[in-house]
Amino acid sequence: MKTLRDIGEDALIERLIRLVPLDEKAAAGPGDDCAVIDQGGEILLLLKTDALVEHVHFLPSAPARSIGWKAAARVISDFAAMGGQPNHFLVTLALPGETAVSWVEDLYRGIGDCLEKFDGVLAGGETSSVPTGSAAVISIAATGTVRRKNVVLRSMGKPGDRIFVTGLLGGSIHGKHLDFTPRIRETNWLVSHFKPTAMMDLSDGLGKDLPRLTAASNCGFKIDEISLPISPGSTPTQAISDGEDFEILFTIASNKSRELIAAWPFPDLPLTEIGELVEKEKSQSLAGGWEHFSK
Amino acid sequence: MKTLRDIGEDALIERLIRLVPLDEKAAAGPGDDCAVIDQGGEILLLLKTDALVEHVHFLPSAPARSIGWKAAARVISDFAAMGGQPNHFLVTLALPGETAVSWVEDLYRGIGDCLEKFDGVLAGGETSSVPTGSAAVISIAATGTVRRKNVVLRSMGKPGDRIFVTGLLGGSIHGKHLDFTPRIRETNWLVSHFKPTAMMDLSDGLGKDLPRLTAASNCGFKIDEISLPISPGSTPTQAISDGEDFEILFTIASNKSRELIAAWPFPDLPLTEIGELVEKEKSQSLAGGWEHFSK
Repeated sequence: MKTLRDIGEDALIERLIRLVPLDEKAAAGPGDDCAVIDQGGEILLLLKTDALVEHVHFLPSAPARSIGWKAAARVISDFAAMGGQPNHFLVTLALPGETAVSWVEDLYRGIGDCLEKFDGVLAGGETSSVPTGSAAVISIAATGTVRRKNVVLRSMGKPGDRIFVTGLLGGSIHGKHLDFTPRIRETNWLVSHFKPTAMMDLSDGLGKDLPRLTAASNCGFKIDEISLPISPGSTPTQAISDGEDFEILFTIASNKSRELIAAWPFPDLPLTEIGELVEKEKSQSLAGGWEHFSK
Repeated sequence: MKTLRDIGEDALIERLIRLVPLDEKAAAGPGDDCAVIDQGGEILLLLKTDALVEHVHFLPSAPARSIGWKAAARVISDFAAMGGQPNHFLVTLALPGETAVSWVEDLYRGIGDCLEKFDGVLAGGETSSVPTGSAAVISIAATGTVRRKNVVLRSMGKPGDRIFVTGLLGGSIHGKHLDFTPRIRETNWLVSHFKPTAMMDLSDGLGKDLPRLTAASNCGFKIDEISLPISPGSTPTQAISDGEDFEILFTIASNKSRELIAAWPFPDLPLTEIGELVEKEKSQSLAGGWEHFSK
Protein backbone atom coordinates (compact mmCIF):
# COMPACT_ATOMS: atom_id res chain seq x y z
CA MET A 1 0.00 0.00 0.00
CA LYS A 2 1.40 3.37 -1.04
CA THR A 3 1.16 6.09 1.57
CA LEU A 4 1.42 9.88 1.39
CA ARG A 5 4.88 9.57 2.90
CA ASP A 6 5.94 7.44 -0.08
CA ILE A 7 4.86 9.81 -2.83
CA GLY A 8 5.11 13.31 -1.29
CA GLU A 9 3.00 16.44 -1.74
CA ASP A 10 3.62 17.42 -5.36
CA ALA A 11 2.92 13.94 -6.78
CA LEU A 12 -0.19 13.72 -4.59
CA ILE A 13 -1.61 17.00 -5.89
CA GLU A 14 -0.96 15.95 -9.47
CA ARG A 15 -3.01 12.78 -8.93
CA LEU A 16 -5.83 14.51 -7.06
CA ILE A 17 -6.64 17.31 -9.47
CA ARG A 18 -7.46 14.73 -12.14
CA LEU A 19 -10.33 13.45 -9.99
CA VAL A 20 -12.45 16.61 -9.71
CA PRO A 21 -14.01 19.18 -12.07
CA LEU A 22 -11.70 22.18 -12.57
CA ASP A 23 -12.46 25.71 -13.72
CA GLU A 24 -11.57 25.72 -17.40
CA LYS A 25 -11.72 29.50 -17.53
CA ALA A 26 -9.47 30.18 -14.54
CA ALA A 27 -6.32 32.15 -15.37
CA ALA A 28 -4.50 30.03 -12.79
CA GLY A 29 -5.79 27.10 -10.78
CA PRO A 30 -4.18 24.48 -8.54
CA GLY A 31 -0.40 24.83 -8.83
CA ASP A 32 0.06 28.59 -8.58
CA ASP A 33 0.25 30.56 -5.32
CA CYS A 34 -3.43 31.47 -5.65
CA ALA A 35 -6.30 30.55 -7.93
CA VAL A 36 -7.08 33.45 -10.26
CA ILE A 37 -10.75 33.85 -11.19
CA ASP A 38 -11.80 36.09 -14.07
CA GLN A 39 -15.19 37.60 -13.26
CA GLY A 40 -15.22 39.97 -16.25
CA GLY A 41 -14.06 43.49 -15.20
CA GLU A 42 -10.64 44.99 -14.49
CA ILE A 43 -10.23 43.24 -11.12
CA LEU A 44 -9.45 39.53 -10.88
CA LEU A 45 -10.53 37.50 -7.86
CA LEU A 46 -7.79 35.58 -6.01
CA LEU A 47 -8.57 32.54 -3.84
CA LYS A 48 -6.24 30.85 -1.39
CA THR A 49 -6.38 28.32 1.40
CA ASP A 50 -3.62 27.38 3.81
CA ALA A 51 -3.29 25.50 7.09
CA LEU A 52 -1.12 25.47 10.20
CA VAL A 53 -0.78 22.22 12.08
CA GLU A 54 0.52 21.94 15.63
CA HIS A 55 3.91 20.15 15.83
CA VAL A 56 4.34 20.67 12.04
CA HIS A 57 4.10 24.47 11.59
CA PHE A 58 4.28 25.56 15.21
CA LEU A 59 5.12 24.07 18.60
CA PRO A 60 2.58 24.02 21.43
CA SER A 61 4.90 26.38 23.32
CA ALA A 62 4.72 29.12 20.68
CA PRO A 63 2.73 32.23 21.68
CA ALA A 64 -0.84 31.91 20.36
CA ARG A 65 -0.82 35.50 19.09
CA SER A 66 2.22 34.73 16.89
CA ILE A 67 0.55 31.58 15.59
CA GLY A 68 -2.47 33.65 14.59
CA TRP A 69 -0.24 36.21 12.87
CA LYS A 70 1.56 33.42 10.99
CA ALA A 71 -1.68 31.74 9.89
CA ALA A 72 -2.96 34.95 8.30
CA ALA A 73 0.43 36.15 7.04
CA ARG A 74 1.08 32.94 5.08
CA VAL A 75 -2.09 33.51 3.07
CA ILE A 76 -1.29 37.20 2.56
CA SER A 77 2.17 36.22 1.34
CA ASP A 78 0.47 34.22 -1.43
CA PHE A 79 -1.57 37.24 -2.48
CA ALA A 80 1.67 39.24 -2.56
CA ALA A 81 3.15 36.56 -4.83
CA MET A 82 0.43 37.26 -7.43
CA GLY A 83 0.87 41.05 -7.26
CA GLY A 84 -2.42 41.38 -5.37
CA GLN A 85 -3.99 42.32 -2.06
CA PRO A 86 -5.96 40.40 0.58
CA ASN A 87 -9.66 40.95 1.15
CA HIS A 88 -12.10 38.56 2.93
CA PHE A 89 -10.92 35.85 5.35
CA LEU A 90 -12.54 32.63 6.57
CA VAL A 91 -10.97 31.00 9.63
CA THR A 92 -11.49 27.32 10.46
CA LEU A 93 -10.29 26.04 13.83
CA ALA A 94 -10.12 22.35 14.74
CA LEU A 95 -9.13 22.25 18.41
CA PRO A 96 -9.39 19.87 21.37
CA GLY A 97 -12.15 20.71 23.87
CA GLU A 98 -9.54 21.24 26.60
CA THR A 99 -7.98 24.21 24.76
CA ALA A 100 -8.03 27.35 26.91
CA VAL A 101 -10.44 30.04 25.71
CA SER A 102 -7.71 32.62 26.33
CA TRP A 103 -5.40 30.73 23.92
CA VAL A 104 -8.01 30.92 21.16
CA GLU A 105 -8.63 34.59 21.90
CA ASP A 106 -4.89 35.29 21.59
CA LEU A 107 -4.80 33.35 18.34
CA TYR A 108 -7.60 35.54 17.00
CA ARG A 109 -5.82 38.68 18.23
CA GLY A 110 -2.82 37.64 16.16
CA ILE A 111 -5.02 37.06 13.11
CA GLY A 112 -6.58 40.46 13.79
CA ASP A 113 -3.16 42.18 14.03
CA CYS A 114 -2.27 40.85 10.61
CA LEU A 115 -5.60 41.62 8.96
CA GLU A 116 -5.48 45.15 10.31
CA LYS A 117 -1.98 45.76 8.97
CA PHE A 118 -2.80 44.45 5.49
CA ASP A 119 -6.42 45.62 5.16
CA GLY A 120 -8.07 42.21 5.36
CA VAL A 121 -11.42 41.56 7.06
CA LEU A 122 -12.92 38.47 8.66
CA ALA A 123 -15.97 37.26 6.72
CA GLY A 124 -16.69 34.04 8.57
CA GLY A 125 -15.35 31.02 10.31
CA GLU A 126 -15.96 27.59 11.64
CA THR A 127 -14.93 25.83 14.80
CA SER A 128 -14.86 22.12 15.44
CA SER A 129 -13.58 19.90 18.19
CA VAL A 130 -10.84 17.34 17.56
CA PRO A 131 -10.30 14.31 19.82
CA THR A 132 -8.17 14.90 22.92
CA GLY A 133 -4.51 14.46 21.99
CA SER A 134 -4.99 15.36 18.32
CA ALA A 135 -2.97 18.21 16.85
CA ALA A 136 -4.68 21.60 16.58
CA VAL A 137 -5.34 22.68 12.98
CA ILE A 138 -5.87 26.27 11.90
CA SER A 139 -7.03 26.59 8.32
CA ILE A 140 -7.45 30.00 6.70
CA ALA A 141 -9.06 30.61 3.34
CA ALA A 142 -9.29 34.06 1.81
CA THR A 143 -10.22 36.08 -1.20
CA GLY A 144 -7.95 38.73 -2.64
CA THR A 145 -7.89 40.99 -5.66
CA VAL A 146 -5.38 41.92 -8.33
CA ARG A 147 -5.63 44.27 -11.29
CA ARG A 148 -5.74 42.32 -14.52
CA LYS A 149 -2.68 44.12 -15.89
CA ASN A 150 -0.68 43.45 -12.71
CA VAL A 151 -1.23 39.74 -12.15
CA VAL A 152 1.95 37.63 -12.24
CA LEU A 153 1.78 33.84 -12.57
CA ARG A 154 4.59 31.33 -12.08
CA SER A 155 4.43 30.31 -15.67
CA MET A 156 5.60 33.20 -17.87
CA GLY A 157 9.37 33.09 -17.24
CA LYS A 158 11.65 32.70 -20.30
CA PRO A 159 15.25 31.55 -20.73
CA GLY A 160 17.51 34.54 -20.16
CA ASP A 161 15.26 36.17 -17.51
CA ARG A 162 17.12 37.11 -14.33
CA ILE A 163 16.14 35.49 -11.03
CA PHE A 164 15.76 37.66 -7.92
CA VAL A 165 14.89 37.11 -4.27
CA THR A 166 13.92 39.61 -1.59
CA GLY A 167 15.40 39.53 1.90
CA LEU A 168 17.69 36.91 3.43
CA LEU A 169 17.24 33.14 3.22
CA GLY A 170 17.56 30.39 5.82
CA GLY A 171 17.14 30.03 9.56
CA SER A 172 13.46 31.05 9.65
CA ILE A 173 12.90 28.38 12.31
CA HIS A 174 14.78 30.55 14.83
CA GLY A 175 11.88 33.00 14.95
CA LYS A 176 11.12 34.66 11.63
CA HIS A 177 8.61 31.96 10.69
CA LEU A 178 6.32 33.28 13.43
CA ASP A 179 6.57 37.01 12.81
CA PHE A 180 7.51 37.52 9.16
CA THR A 181 6.12 40.36 7.10
CA PRO A 182 4.33 39.36 3.89
CA ARG A 183 5.93 41.27 1.00
CA ILE A 184 2.76 43.07 -0.12
CA ARG A 185 4.46 46.47 -0.21
CA GLU A 186 7.32 45.22 -2.37
CA THR A 187 5.32 43.16 -4.86
CA ASN A 188 2.71 45.88 -5.28
CA TRP A 189 5.53 48.28 -6.17
CA LEU A 190 7.15 45.67 -8.43
CA VAL A 191 4.11 44.83 -10.54
CA SER A 192 3.46 48.48 -11.31
CA HIS A 193 7.11 49.41 -12.06
CA PHE A 194 9.01 46.32 -13.25
CA LYS A 195 6.44 43.66 -13.87
CA PRO A 196 8.04 40.24 -13.21
CA THR A 197 7.61 37.45 -15.75
CA ALA A 198 7.12 34.84 -13.00
CA MET A 199 6.75 35.14 -9.23
CA MET A 200 6.04 33.03 -6.13
CA ASP A 201 6.63 33.17 -2.40
CA LEU A 202 9.26 30.94 -0.78
CA SER A 203 7.39 28.70 1.64
CA ASP A 204 9.18 25.35 1.27
CA GLY A 205 12.73 26.65 0.67
CA LEU A 206 14.51 27.79 -2.50
CA GLY A 207 15.63 24.22 -3.24
CA LYS A 208 12.01 23.08 -3.49
CA ASP A 209 10.32 26.23 -4.75
CA LEU A 210 12.68 27.40 -7.51
CA PRO A 211 12.25 24.10 -9.40
CA ARG A 212 8.46 24.57 -9.05
CA LEU A 213 8.64 28.03 -10.59
CA THR A 214 10.89 26.93 -13.43
CA ALA A 215 8.78 23.81 -14.09
CA ALA A 216 5.68 26.04 -14.37
CA SER A 217 7.59 28.27 -16.81
CA ASN A 218 8.92 25.22 -18.69
CA CYS A 219 12.50 26.43 -18.08
CA GLY A 220 15.59 25.44 -16.17
CA PHE A 221 17.77 27.62 -13.93
CA LYS A 222 21.36 28.46 -13.20
CA ILE A 223 22.07 29.81 -9.73
CA ASP A 224 25.19 31.58 -8.55
CA GLU A 225 25.35 30.03 -5.06
CA ILE A 226 27.97 32.54 -3.97
CA SER A 227 25.47 35.35 -4.50
CA LEU A 228 22.72 33.87 -2.29
CA PRO A 229 21.62 36.33 0.42
CA ILE A 230 22.03 34.27 3.59
CA SER A 231 20.56 35.06 7.02
CA PRO A 232 23.18 35.73 9.72
CA GLY A 233 24.01 32.41 11.39
CA SER A 234 22.76 30.28 8.49
CA THR A 235 24.85 28.18 6.10
CA PRO A 236 24.43 28.20 2.29
CA THR A 237 22.81 24.76 2.61
CA GLN A 238 20.26 26.12 5.07
CA ALA A 239 19.56 29.09 2.78
CA ILE A 240 18.59 26.58 0.10
CA SER A 241 16.90 23.96 2.27
CA ASP A 242 15.13 25.72 5.11
CA GLY A 243 11.42 26.32 4.57
CA GLU A 244 9.25 29.27 5.58
CA ASP A 245 11.42 32.15 4.36
CA PHE A 246 8.30 33.87 2.99
CA GLU A 247 10.48 35.99 0.77
CA ILE A 248 9.55 36.60 -2.85
CA LEU A 249 11.22 34.77 -5.73
CA PHE A 250 10.70 36.36 -9.15
CA THR A 251 12.13 36.66 -12.64
CA ILE A 252 12.32 39.66 -14.96
CA ALA A 253 13.58 40.26 -18.49
CA SER A 254 17.37 40.55 -18.45
CA ASN A 255 17.40 44.03 -19.97
CA LYS A 256 15.49 45.39 -16.96
CA SER A 257 17.61 43.91 -14.22
CA ARG A 258 20.13 46.74 -13.74
CA GLU A 259 17.43 49.36 -13.79
CA LEU A 260 15.43 47.42 -11.20
CA ILE A 261 18.40 47.14 -8.84
CA ALA A 262 18.97 50.90 -9.13
CA ALA A 263 15.31 51.78 -8.59
CA TRP A 264 14.57 49.40 -5.67
CA PRO A 265 13.09 51.82 -3.12
CA PHE A 266 13.19 49.68 0.06
CA PRO A 267 16.51 50.19 1.86
CA ASP A 268 15.30 47.98 4.73
CA LEU A 269 14.91 44.92 2.49
CA PRO A 270 17.73 43.58 0.31
CA LEU A 271 17.01 42.61 -3.29
CA THR A 272 19.46 40.11 -4.80
CA GLU A 273 19.98 38.77 -8.29
CA ILE A 274 20.80 35.10 -7.78
CA GLY A 275 20.93 33.66 -11.30
CA GLU A 276 19.02 33.23 -14.51
CA LEU A 277 16.46 31.07 -16.27
CA VAL A 278 17.92 28.76 -18.91
CA GLU A 279 16.51 26.19 -21.25
CA LYS A 280 15.08 23.15 -19.52
CA GLU A 281 17.76 20.72 -20.70
CA LYS A 282 20.52 22.97 -19.40
CA SER A 283 19.14 23.27 -15.87
CA GLN A 284 21.27 22.93 -12.80
CA SER A 285 19.81 20.93 -9.91
CA LEU A 286 19.43 22.12 -6.36
CA ALA A 287 19.07 19.69 -3.46
CA GLY A 288 16.97 20.48 -0.40
CA GLY A 289 13.71 22.04 0.67
CA TRP A 290 10.85 20.99 2.89
CA GLU A 291 8.93 17.85 1.95
CA HIS A 292 5.52 17.42 3.56
CA PHE A 293 4.62 13.88 4.71
CA SER A 294 8.28 12.78 4.69
CA LYS A 295 8.90 13.54 8.36
CA MET B 1 -8.78 28.27 33.35
CA LYS B 2 -11.83 28.26 31.09
CA THR B 3 -11.72 25.79 28.20
CA LEU B 4 -13.68 25.51 24.97
CA ARG B 5 -15.59 22.64 26.56
CA ASP B 6 -16.77 25.02 29.30
CA ILE B 7 -18.17 27.74 27.08
CA GLY B 8 -19.26 25.96 23.86
CA GLU B 9 -19.22 27.04 20.24
CA ASP B 10 -21.72 29.91 20.10
CA ALA B 11 -20.22 31.77 23.07
CA LEU B 12 -16.74 31.24 21.64
CA ILE B 13 -17.65 32.74 18.26
CA GLU B 14 -19.25 35.72 19.96
CA ARG B 15 -16.00 36.43 21.81
CA LEU B 16 -13.75 35.89 18.81
CA ILE B 17 -15.43 38.15 16.28
CA ARG B 18 -14.79 41.10 18.58
CA LEU B 19 -11.04 40.60 18.18
CA VAL B 20 -10.65 41.01 14.42
CA PRO B 21 -11.61 43.58 11.76
CA LEU B 22 -14.98 42.74 10.16
CA ASP B 23 -16.46 43.79 6.83
CA GLU B 24 -18.77 46.67 7.69
CA LYS B 25 -20.39 46.54 4.27
CA ALA B 26 -21.14 42.80 4.26
CA ALA B 27 -24.85 41.98 3.98
CA ALA B 28 -24.19 39.06 6.33
CA GLY B 29 -21.00 38.08 8.10
CA PRO B 30 -20.13 35.58 10.83
CA GLY B 31 -23.35 34.13 12.23
CA ASP B 32 -25.29 33.38 9.05
CA ASP B 33 -24.90 30.23 6.95
CA CYS B 34 -22.56 32.09 4.59
CA ALA B 35 -20.90 35.48 4.44
CA VAL B 36 -22.60 37.64 1.82
CA ILE B 37 -20.33 40.07 -0.01
CA ASP B 38 -21.77 42.92 -2.06
CA GLN B 39 -19.43 43.61 -5.00
CA GLY B 40 -21.72 46.05 -6.77
CA GLY B 41 -23.78 44.27 -9.51
CA GLU B 42 -26.81 42.02 -9.43
CA ILE B 43 -24.88 38.98 -8.15
CA LEU B 44 -23.74 38.75 -4.53
CA LEU B 45 -20.66 36.71 -3.60
CA LEU B 46 -21.15 34.00 -0.94
CA LEU B 47 -18.24 32.68 1.14
CA LYS B 48 -18.26 29.60 3.34
CA THR B 49 -15.78 27.39 5.16
CA ASP B 50 -16.47 24.10 6.90
CA ALA B 51 -14.47 21.21 8.28
CA LEU B 52 -14.81 17.48 8.84
CA VAL B 53 -12.80 15.92 11.64
CA GLU B 54 -12.15 12.20 11.98
CA HIS B 55 -13.94 10.67 15.03
CA VAL B 56 -16.14 13.80 15.25
CA HIS B 57 -17.83 13.99 11.83
CA PHE B 58 -16.89 10.58 10.46
CA LEU B 59 -15.42 7.31 11.70
CA PRO B 60 -12.18 5.91 10.27
CA SER B 61 -14.22 2.99 8.93
CA ALA B 62 -16.45 5.21 6.75
CA PRO B 63 -15.84 4.93 2.99
CA ALA B 64 -13.49 7.73 1.89
CA ARG B 65 -15.65 8.54 -1.12
CA SER B 66 -18.64 9.20 1.17
CA ILE B 67 -16.50 11.39 3.43
CA GLY B 68 -15.49 13.44 0.39
CA TRP B 69 -19.11 13.78 -0.69
CA LYS B 70 -20.09 14.86 2.81
CA ALA B 71 -17.30 17.45 3.05
CA ALA B 72 -18.42 19.15 -0.16
CA ALA B 73 -22.16 18.66 0.42
CA ARG B 74 -22.08 20.39 3.82
CA VAL B 75 -20.74 23.55 2.19
CA ILE B 76 -23.23 23.34 -0.67
CA SER B 77 -26.03 22.96 1.87
CA ASP B 78 -25.02 26.35 3.27
CA PHE B 79 -25.23 27.95 -0.17
CA ALA B 80 -28.68 26.38 -0.53
CA ALA B 81 -29.63 27.98 2.79
CA MET B 82 -28.96 31.45 1.32
CA GLY B 83 -30.91 30.76 -1.89
CA GLY B 84 -27.66 30.53 -3.84
CA GLN B 85 -25.41 28.19 -5.81
CA PRO B 86 -21.87 26.89 -5.30
CA ASN B 87 -18.99 28.00 -7.48
CA HIS B 88 -15.23 27.70 -6.63
CA PHE B 89 -13.88 25.25 -4.03
CA LEU B 90 -10.64 25.17 -2.02
CA VAL B 91 -9.81 21.88 -0.29
CA THR B 92 -7.41 21.70 2.66
CA LEU B 93 -6.30 18.28 3.86
CA ALA B 94 -4.39 17.70 7.10
CA LEU B 95 -3.53 14.00 7.15
CA PRO B 96 -0.99 11.68 8.77
CA GLY B 97 1.87 10.60 6.49
CA GLU B 98 0.80 6.97 6.79
CA THR B 99 -2.55 7.65 5.08
CA ALA B 100 -2.97 5.49 1.97
CA VAL B 101 -2.81 7.39 -1.32
CA SER B 102 -5.82 5.40 -2.51
CA TRP B 103 -7.83 6.68 0.49
CA VAL B 104 -7.09 10.28 -0.44
CA GLU B 105 -7.91 9.60 -4.08
CA ASP B 106 -11.28 8.14 -3.05
CA LEU B 107 -11.89 11.16 -0.84
CA TYR B 108 -11.27 13.42 -3.84
CA ARG B 109 -13.52 11.26 -6.03
CA GLY B 110 -16.32 11.85 -3.51
CA ILE B 111 -15.66 15.60 -3.56
CA GLY B 112 -15.66 15.40 -7.36
CA ASP B 113 -19.01 13.51 -7.44
CA CYS B 114 -20.59 16.26 -5.41
CA LEU B 115 -19.05 19.17 -7.34
CA GLU B 116 -20.14 17.60 -10.60
CA LYS B 117 -23.72 17.19 -9.45
CA PHE B 118 -24.01 20.77 -8.18
CA ASP B 119 -21.85 22.59 -10.75
CA GLY B 120 -18.93 23.43 -8.46
CA VAL B 121 -15.29 23.45 -9.56
CA LEU B 122 -12.04 22.97 -7.68
CA ALA B 123 -9.96 26.17 -7.66
CA GLY B 124 -7.15 25.12 -5.36
CA GLY B 125 -6.08 23.23 -2.30
CA GLU B 126 -3.50 22.62 0.32
CA THR B 127 -2.16 19.47 1.91
CA SER B 128 -0.29 19.20 5.18
CA SER B 129 0.90 16.39 7.33
CA VAL B 130 -0.37 15.94 10.89
CA PRO B 131 1.53 13.94 13.53
CA THR B 132 0.95 10.18 13.53
CA GLY B 133 -2.13 9.41 15.64
CA SER B 134 -3.75 12.82 15.09
CA ALA B 135 -7.22 12.99 13.63
CA ALA B 136 -7.51 13.71 9.91
CA VAL B 137 -9.05 17.11 9.14
CA ILE B 138 -10.71 18.00 5.83
CA SER B 139 -11.49 21.68 5.52
CA ILE B 140 -13.39 23.01 2.52
CA ALA B 141 -13.88 26.68 1.70
CA ALA B 142 -15.90 27.84 -1.26
CA THR B 143 -17.39 30.77 -3.06
CA GLY B 144 -20.96 30.81 -4.25
CA THR B 145 -23.33 33.26 -5.85
CA VAL B 146 -26.87 34.45 -5.24
CA ARG B 147 -29.03 37.00 -7.04
CA ARG B 148 -29.50 40.09 -4.93
CA LYS B 149 -33.29 39.78 -5.03
CA ASN B 150 -33.15 36.12 -3.97
CA VAL B 151 -30.83 36.18 -0.97
CA VAL B 152 -32.40 35.02 2.29
CA LEU B 153 -30.73 35.72 5.65
CA ARG B 154 -31.60 34.24 9.04
CA SER B 155 -32.59 37.60 10.37
CA MET B 156 -35.74 38.80 8.59
CA GLY B 157 -38.35 36.55 10.23
CA LYS B 158 -41.32 38.27 11.96
CA PRO B 159 -43.82 37.14 14.60
CA GLY B 160 -46.69 35.38 12.83
CA ASP B 161 -44.49 33.89 10.07
CA ARG B 162 -44.97 30.16 9.60
CA ILE B 163 -42.04 27.79 10.21
CA PHE B 164 -41.35 25.01 7.70
CA VAL B 165 -38.85 22.19 7.33
CA THR B 166 -38.03 20.03 4.34
CA GLY B 167 -37.61 16.26 4.59
CA LEU B 168 -37.57 14.11 7.71
CA LEU B 169 -35.65 14.81 10.91
CA GLY B 170 -33.53 12.59 13.16
CA GLY B 171 -31.40 9.48 12.79
CA SER B 172 -28.94 10.96 10.28
CA ILE B 173 -26.16 9.08 12.06
CA HIS B 174 -27.51 5.80 10.61
CA GLY B 175 -26.25 6.79 7.16
CA LYS B 176 -27.87 9.93 5.78
CA HIS B 177 -25.10 12.13 7.23
CA LEU B 178 -22.70 10.59 4.69
CA ASP B 179 -24.84 10.71 1.55
CA PHE B 180 -27.38 13.49 2.00
CA THR B 181 -28.46 15.71 -0.88
CA PRO B 182 -28.01 19.45 -0.33
CA ARG B 183 -31.37 21.15 -0.96
CA ILE B 184 -30.19 23.40 -3.79
CA ARG B 185 -33.06 22.43 -6.08
CA GLU B 186 -35.70 23.17 -3.43
CA THR B 187 -34.30 26.47 -2.13
CA ASN B 188 -33.65 27.78 -5.64
CA TRP B 189 -37.31 27.11 -6.43
CA LEU B 190 -38.41 28.61 -3.11
CA VAL B 191 -36.57 31.93 -3.41
CA SER B 192 -38.02 32.57 -6.83
CA HIS B 193 -41.62 31.55 -5.98
CA PHE B 194 -42.27 32.02 -2.24
CA LYS B 195 -39.33 33.95 -0.90
CA PRO B 196 -38.77 32.94 2.74
CA THR B 197 -38.30 35.65 5.39
CA ALA B 198 -35.55 33.62 7.13
CA MET B 199 -33.75 30.42 6.20
CA MET B 200 -30.91 28.15 7.36
CA ASP B 201 -29.82 24.55 7.02
CA LEU B 202 -30.16 22.14 9.93
CA SER B 203 -26.65 21.00 10.80
CA ASP B 204 -26.72 20.82 14.60
CA GLY B 205 -30.33 19.67 15.06
CA LEU B 206 -33.62 21.59 15.25
CA GLY B 207 -33.22 22.05 19.02
CA LYS B 208 -30.01 23.99 18.48
CA ASP B 209 -30.63 25.60 15.10
CA LEU B 210 -34.20 26.89 15.46
CA PRO B 211 -33.21 29.05 18.46
CA ARG B 212 -30.31 30.39 16.35
CA LEU B 213 -32.66 31.39 13.54
CA THR B 214 -35.16 32.99 15.88
CA ALA B 215 -32.41 34.80 17.82
CA ALA B 216 -31.09 36.25 14.52
CA SER B 217 -34.65 37.39 13.69
CA ASN B 218 -35.15 38.69 17.23
CA CYS B 219 -38.22 36.47 17.63
CA GLY B 220 -39.37 33.48 19.59
CA PHE B 221 -41.08 30.32 18.30
CA LYS B 222 -43.96 27.98 19.02
CA ILE B 223 -43.60 24.46 17.66
CA ASP B 224 -46.31 21.86 17.31
CA GLU B 225 -44.23 18.83 18.29
CA ILE B 226 -46.92 16.46 17.04
CA SER B 227 -46.45 17.81 13.53
CA LEU B 228 -42.67 17.20 13.34
CA PRO B 229 -41.71 15.06 10.33
CA ILE B 230 -39.75 12.24 11.92
CA SER B 231 -37.46 9.78 10.13
CA PRO B 232 -38.63 6.15 10.32
CA GLY B 233 -37.08 4.57 13.42
CA SER B 234 -36.40 7.88 15.17
CA THR B 235 -38.14 9.27 18.24
CA PRO B 236 -39.49 12.85 18.54
CA THR B 237 -36.55 13.58 20.86
CA GLN B 238 -34.10 12.42 18.21
CA ALA B 239 -35.85 14.51 15.56
CA ILE B 240 -35.16 17.55 17.75
CA SER B 241 -31.71 16.60 19.07
CA ASP B 242 -29.86 14.72 16.34
CA GLY B 243 -27.46 16.80 14.26
CA GLU B 244 -26.66 16.62 10.55
CA ASP B 245 -30.17 16.48 9.10
CA PHE B 246 -29.07 18.95 6.40
CA GLU B 247 -32.69 19.76 5.76
CA ILE B 248 -33.81 23.36 5.28
CA LEU B 249 -35.56 25.34 8.02
CA PHE B 250 -37.37 28.47 6.84
CA THR B 251 -40.13 30.90 7.63
CA ILE B 252 -42.63 32.63 5.36
CA ALA B 253 -45.42 35.16 5.83
CA SER B 254 -48.51 33.40 7.21
CA ASN B 255 -50.76 34.44 4.31
CA LYS B 256 -48.54 32.51 1.88
CA SER B 257 -48.33 29.25 3.77
CA ARG B 258 -51.36 27.47 2.27
CA GLU B 259 -50.44 28.47 -1.23
CA LEU B 260 -46.88 27.23 -0.71
CA ILE B 261 -48.06 23.83 0.51
CA ALA B 262 -50.30 23.50 -2.54
CA ALA B 263 -47.59 24.59 -4.97
CA TRP B 264 -44.68 22.52 -3.57
CA PRO B 265 -43.48 20.70 -6.71
CA PHE B 266 -41.22 18.02 -5.17
CA PRO B 267 -43.27 14.88 -4.42
CA ASP B 268 -40.09 13.06 -3.36
CA LEU B 269 -39.39 15.49 -0.50
CA PRO B 270 -41.94 16.29 2.20
CA LEU B 271 -42.53 19.89 3.22
CA THR B 272 -43.98 20.35 6.71
CA GLU B 273 -45.32 23.35 8.59
CA ILE B 274 -44.12 22.84 12.16
CA GLY B 275 -45.10 26.05 13.96
CA GLU B 276 -44.81 29.80 13.92
CA LEU B 277 -42.61 32.67 14.98
CA VAL B 278 -43.87 34.58 18.02
CA GLU B 279 -42.66 37.53 20.01
CA LYS B 280 -39.45 36.87 21.87
CA GLU B 281 -40.97 36.94 25.35
CA LYS B 282 -43.56 34.35 24.37
CA SER B 283 -41.09 31.79 23.04
CA GLN B 284 -41.27 28.15 23.85
CA SER B 285 -37.98 26.41 24.62
CA LEU B 286 -36.65 23.30 22.92
CA ALA B 287 -34.02 21.10 24.54
CA GLY B 288 -31.38 19.26 22.51
CA GLY B 289 -29.04 19.62 19.57
CA TRP B 290 -25.37 19.01 19.00
CA GLU B 291 -22.89 20.99 21.08
CA HIS B 292 -19.32 21.11 19.75
CA PHE B 293 -16.57 20.79 22.37
CA SER B 294 -18.95 19.25 24.93
CA LYS B 295 -18.21 15.65 24.05
